[in-house]
Amino acid sequence: MFKFEIQKNDTPTGARLGKMHTAHGIVDTPAFMPVATQAVVKGLSPEEVCDMGFQMVIVNAYHMFLRPGHKTVEEQGGLHGFMHWDRPITTDSGGFQVLSLAKTRKIKEGGIIFQSHLDGTEHFLTPALAIEIQESLGSDIMMCLDECPPYPSTEEYIKDSVGLTTSWAKLCKNARSKQDRALFGIVQGGVYPELRERSAGELAEIGFDGYALGGLGIGEDPGATYDITEHTLSFLPRDKPRYLMGLGNPEDIVTAVSCGVDLFDCVIPTRNARNGTLFTSRGKLVIKNARYTEDKRPIDESCCCYTCKTYSRSYLRHLFIAKEILVLRLLTLHNLSFYAELMRNIRRAIAQEEFSNLISSVQSHGGHEKIETF
Amino acid sequence: MFKFEIQKNDTPTGARLGKMHTAHGIVDTPAFMPVATQAVVKGLSPEEVCDMGFQMVIVNAYHMFLRPGHKTVEEQGGLHGFMHWDRPITTDSGGFQVLSLAKTRKIKEGGIIFQSHLDGTEHFLTPALAIEIQESLGSDIMMCLDECPPYPSTEEYIKDSVGLTTSWAKLCKNARSKQDRALFGIVQGGVYPELRERSAGELAEIGFDGYALGGLGIGEDPGATYDITEHTLSFLPRDKPRYLMGLGNPEDIVTAVSCGVDLFDCVIPTRNARNGTLFTSRGKLVIKNARYTEDKRPIDESCCCYTCKTYSRSYLRHLFIAKEILVLRLLTLHNLSFYAELMRNIRRAIAQEEFSNLISSVQSHGGHEKIETF
Repeated sequence: MFKFEIQKNDTPTGARLGKMHTAHGIVDTPAFMPVATQAVVKGLSPEEVCDMGFQMVIVNAYHMFLRPGHKTVEEQGGLHGFMHWDRPITTDSGGFQVLSLAKTRKIKEGGIIFQSHLDGTEHFLTPALAIEIQESLGSDIMMCLDECPPYPSTEEYIKDSVGLTTSWAKLCKNARSKQDRALFGIVQGGVYPELRERSAGELAEIGFDGYALGGLGIGEDPGATYDITEHTLSFLPRDKPRYLMGLGNPEDIVTAVSCGVDLFDCVIPTRNARNGTLFTSRGKLVIKNARYTEDKRPIDESCCCYTCKTYSRSYLRHLFIAKEILVLRLLTLHNLSFYAELMRNIRRAIAQEEFSNLISSVQSHGGHEKIETF
Repeated sequence: MFKFEIQKNDTPTGARLGKMHTAHGIVDTPAFMPVATQAVVKGLSPEEVCDMGFQMVIVNAYHMFLRPGHKTVEEQGGLHGFMHWDRPITTDSGGFQVLSLAKTRKIKEGGIIFQSHLDGTEHFLTPALAIEIQESLGSDIMMCLDECPPYPSTEEYIKDSVGLTTSWAKLCKNARSKQDRALFGIVQGGVYPELRERSAGELAEIGFDGYALGGLGIGEDPGATYDITEHTLSFLPRDKPRYLMGLGNPEDIVTAVSCGVDLFDCVIPTRNARNGTLFTSRGKLVIKNARYTEDKRPIDESCCCYTCKTYSRSYLRHLFIAKEILVLRLLTLHNLSFYAELMRNIRRAIAQEEFSNLISSVQSHGGHEKIETF
């Protein structure tokens, strides 16, 4: 059975140190889940992801449903067998991807009619189907189907959307057949504090194993993101894990942890790596920059990842410019190692009552938004 | 100093078992060199290439000269330091790439004027420059600059080309400054036995550490390839290594080994892998084929590579169809493992006087040209 244990509450901030017990083992929180959209962390083997210290990845149910099909994955031993990852797996329900990827979509009371972004075929994604897909995939943490409205949307629209998300959440809970797997509700409500409060309250009343904050980081003012996050968390049960979906940069993560968020996923470390933008202890480094042509140093002298222990900036730049695919793996390894280390530092800082210092330290690295030229 | 030792001559065939001693260690022959055109075996780390048992790779001097520049590589500790490979490295001189890649090329007595395929800049590649580049790269086996005529070419053209190749070979030998690195001559002569004989004889008279057969596998009848190979080898010193450039399929390799070839390089295993065509003990397998959608078996049940020990055809097909880059690495690992095993089997068979049996066995796998549907 899924269980969440809080081991320590940080007093100066709202940060928590915890452990999620899942059907495939423990996840120490605050945790970051590398994104394995199509049942693979792009470019990496599961052993590499595991060796960095990640305990959980997130796979996309929408993608698995369309290709290769959740029944095919089930036949192959579920996602764990299919992708050869024996640690916990979260799956997103597909609500967000239907919004962002589908060719057309039509929201009905019973679900979402959409056309596949791959071949235009029409599908009807209902709350019950979202759960059926995720149970077939064998995920340890399933997400309810939600309606994720675009930003900006009117208060009127968001109000209806919250209502729909609540009623779908009930249907999802009812559709669930595997009680050893966790099901999280997703709070919506846009940037409207009263609607967030209502959404959080209604989901808490239904009762889930954990709660996610959806519909954030989709274009709203960054200040609003954390006001809404903090406000919403105050209406969610303190003893359940809270998951901020789809965000963040290192600064996003420490800020959200200080509000009491336990779980994260984001494409930033992996996508940035593929674009050649690297996180370092001194800010971001853009590997294709001509100044690295002859640079013998590793990406980050204080990093212990395979890439930094093995290759010079000069070689990595050469591979990047020459479009050699090995570089995508090497840079992804580095960026994810940076994130794994960040999360270890966060957990250690909370344990040692030094989390406030860590926040300032992460935020002072030029905000990581500044491109360093070192 | 470079040294070649023949440990055993196969009596029923012309096959030889040997050891090349290079500045970076021993290479057991017959050997296959994975192609690391741009200082990387596409998709693989050097540790992966090494773990499969390969003792030498081949890098392209033409590519390194144009990008990142041989002086940059020299600054980074030569190719060995740059690409983090501490075993022997062969470099091709660039003659073939100037033929196949350059936008325009003009053969002069003193060298080749060509335009870079990358940015159109004009360069003059002379025998002395070809050696300077390869010495900067720190290669263990350098190749002379040759003129590689297209197929078909007239006997008249090939005759001139052989003359030029001989005179360039002399200039290359004179230009060489590092005596601990090997220099191989390249026999040309097209499909004309007399011209091959002349080319081999002239190069042997100049005297090189080894001899390569160039200008084969470029469109001539496959039967002609081996007639020419066998004929040419008879005019080359028996105590020096012989390298058949750019060929082969498994059948090519066993046939050429039986003629007395010691060294191979070819893009087939790596390029086929990226196209999803896999070598197996039962013939070729095309991973994108719909029949593998639900197939739980590994690519090859008798293969011990990481890919076969870990993943189903179903998962690999999914990654391939979904264009996930990890699959390029996994399939390349498999195909190169197949080649590493083939070369081990060839060496073992020669040692145990069973090489004739191995030839029939390799050739009976549907010629590997047949696509198996298993």
